[in-house]
Amino acid sequence: MHDLLSSTARTATTSAIRDLLEHAQRPGMISLAGGLPDPSLFPTEALADIAASVLRDDGQRTLQYGLTAGAQNLRDLLLGEAGIDTHDGATAVVVTTGSQQALHLLAQVLLDPGDTVVVGDPDYLGALQAFRGRTAELTAIPIDQNGLCVDVLADRLRDGLRPKFVYTVPHFHNPTGSTLSVERRAALLALADTYGFLVVFDDPYRDLAVTAPPRDAPDTGPHVVELRSVSKVLAPGLRVGWMFGPPWLTDAIERAKQAADLHTSTLTQAIVFEALRAPWFPDHLTTLRGSTATKRQALCAALVDTFGTELEFHQPGGGMFVWGRFVDGRDTSELLVAALDRGVAFVPGDAFAVARPLHDHLRLSWATATTEDLRAGVERLLG
Amino acid sequence: MHDLLSSTARTATTSAIRDLLEHAQRPGMISLAGGLPDPSLFPTEALADIAASVLRDDGQRTLQYGLTAGAQNLRDLLLGEAGIDTHDGATAVVVTTGSQQALHLLAQVLLDPGDTVVVGDPDYLGALQAFRGRTAELTAIPIDQNGLCVDVLADRLRDGLRPKFVYTVPHFHNPTGSTLSVERRAALLALADTYGFLVVFDDPYRDLAVTAPPRDAPDTGPHVVELRSVSKVLAPGLRVGWMFGPPWLTDAIERAKQAADLHTSTLTQAIVFEALRAPWFPDHLTTLRGSTATKRQALCAALVDTFGTELEFHQPGGGMFVWGRFVDGRDTSELLVAALDRGVAFVPGDAFAVARPLHDHLRLSWATATTEDLRAGVERLLG
Repeated sequence: MHDLLSSTARTATTSAIRDLLEHAQRPGMISLAGGLPDPSLFPTEALADIAASVLRDDGQRTLQYGLTAGAQNLRDLLLGEAGIDTHDGATAVVVTTGSQQALHLLAQVLLDPGDTVVVGDPDYLGALQAFRGRTAELTAIPIDQNGLCVDVLADRLRDGLRPKFVYTVPHFHNPTGSTLSVERRAALLALADTYGFLVVFDDPYRDLAVTAPPRDAPDTGPHVVELRSVSKVLAPGLRVGWMFGPPWLTDAIERAKQAADLHTSTLTQAIVFEALRAPWFPDHLTTLRGSTATKRQALCAALVDTFGTELEFHQPGGGMFVWGRFVDGRDTSELLVAALDRGVAFVPGDAFAVARPLHDHLRLSWATATTEDLRAGVERLLG
Repeated sequence: MHDLLSSTARTATTSAIRDLLEHAQRPGMISLAGGLPDPSLFPTEALADIAASVLRDDGQRTLQYGLTAGAQNLRDLLLGEAGIDTHDGATAVVVTTGSQQALHLLAQVLLDPGDTVVVGDPDYLGALQAFRGRTAELTAIPIDQNGLCVDVLADRLRDGLRPKFVYTVPHFHNPTGSTLSVERRAALLALADTYGFLVVFDDPYRDLAVTAPPRDAPDTGPHVVELRSVSKVLAPGLRVGWMFGPPWLTDAIERAKQAADLHTSTLTQAIVFEALRAPWFPDHLTTLRGSTATKRQALCAALVDTFGTELEFHQPGGGMFVWGRFVDGRDTSELLVAALDRGVAFVPGDAFAVARPLHDHLRLSWATATTEDLRAGVERLLG
């Protein structure tokens, strides 16, 4: 029956993310693998109260079909909280079923087969999958501790590269943990204006900053798209994200979304609307930042204590991930097999590779495990 | 900036569904237009209790990322309640973000540009949009009061038609209200086996039967796909649907879904799991069936009283829709403009047309309006 599958579906590869989500659920496993938020920090009681009250007080609306672009009250709140001036009509918002749907629909709306997309090398697997699903050509630009190497991109553009868009995670990049510097960000936006491509900032980790939080207002303008989500700051199970962008693009995403899933759950949108404006939410963010600082410290200290100079890494300014390289070049896919036997999971660098193999790299997440388990997990890594 | 849009996005037409959802929300409007369930029948209190308890009792799981195929307990329940024998491995289930996502992903997974899909003429707009988004060729087969005219399809197959799949709503079809007869259903499945195409049964209205409910166990087999949803029997705002089908196809849908939205909300899946097995759920279905019978009667009686023999229609056995034709050939798109001015909305037949224009047809829904408003709405139609 596989001959009934489309050419796109036949070329789909087994997904590493899916396999890892299954590993992470095995009992006794210490997971340094997934980007799963720490479930002990979910505001379950507050969300239970909110869920019950939005259903009791306004159930006929929160259970009914809703607008494809998202609930009007939530969209107004998101624009307002981001400090976006809606009077000039330059930036609009559309709610998505998590940021993953925004990536999928951006690929569908923007890409024809053979179009070029610039990504980092390495970069987020879910984005690579979404773009490859449209049989786009991925051009990989290196990423260092200051984010995407925009000078390399500038050279490639001068040599004739013409991408539909450039994709990057600007804060606490997945998997490298790096943050795009202010200078590179400005240079990237200038290149976008010169060459007429879009810049897609995928920004789920921005509020998990250990030090100074990033500035609040997103860049706006005809070439800027910004993806946000509650997955890392409230709860991923709600599946609520949103996209800021120029109206011609949010309109196209809205049309595509209608055929994709009609709209995102009106119930989870109503819960998010109430949570984001609840009096406890700023304190919750402070708690998440504190936990991020503590766990980052625990993981990095354990790595130094355990591996010394054998493992090179930069301590990120926030987010969830440490990106390391073994100086002896050991193969991290082989290490993973042994590590799983010893009860610890991580993601080998090759899972994120685009242009060049990353056999000797690995991504370690501090998000899911407890502080104690972070050290125990690193010790299990060593064997 | 529109030159940045993909060829697919550029050819997207303005959506009639979206416009109608906006009409239906205008104050004072009696809507005979949308397929919106009656919100006064939503079990809001029971769902408020369930939402609070799944968050309080198991919030760390119901707020976390989940499996792409859907929560295991929900999938087991759905297979069990459908009476599907899972031991032979012939039929599997994948949870989707409403049935609309199943249509979208089926199109993505099965269709290459130029592939043929058989649909009814007329047929459900959301399905037509999803298939057209993959630039599929739609071959329209007439629908009468016994559903898809399978004898016409047999002739076309004999003449060389080779569809990837045949799509139909088997119970209380949208927009025609017709139900596929047992004989035609058997003939269709026999043709699928002979010619090697899939049959996609999109079955959201099956539990809204006025008379005898349809048999419970879905047809299974290598060529049968069945789409289900809680949108019409619990609440559309939860965005929970599911697809039964052969495992090679549910696996492909699962891979595509991972790039599309990672997974459907774990919270709304947990709510659906508890609601479907709650002691009150069978009584709730009985209430919905009773309301369907009352409202169908009210709408059909008002149509006969108001239009006499000017409007031809068959009374459907359940669902939400009456499909009518004005014998004088009056244009229902023109009628809609006047009707909206008089405070009543419906959907002109041309919105569902595939091969031939349906200027003189209209779809009327009894689902959203109260029994009193159904009569008042029909009277406003006359002017």
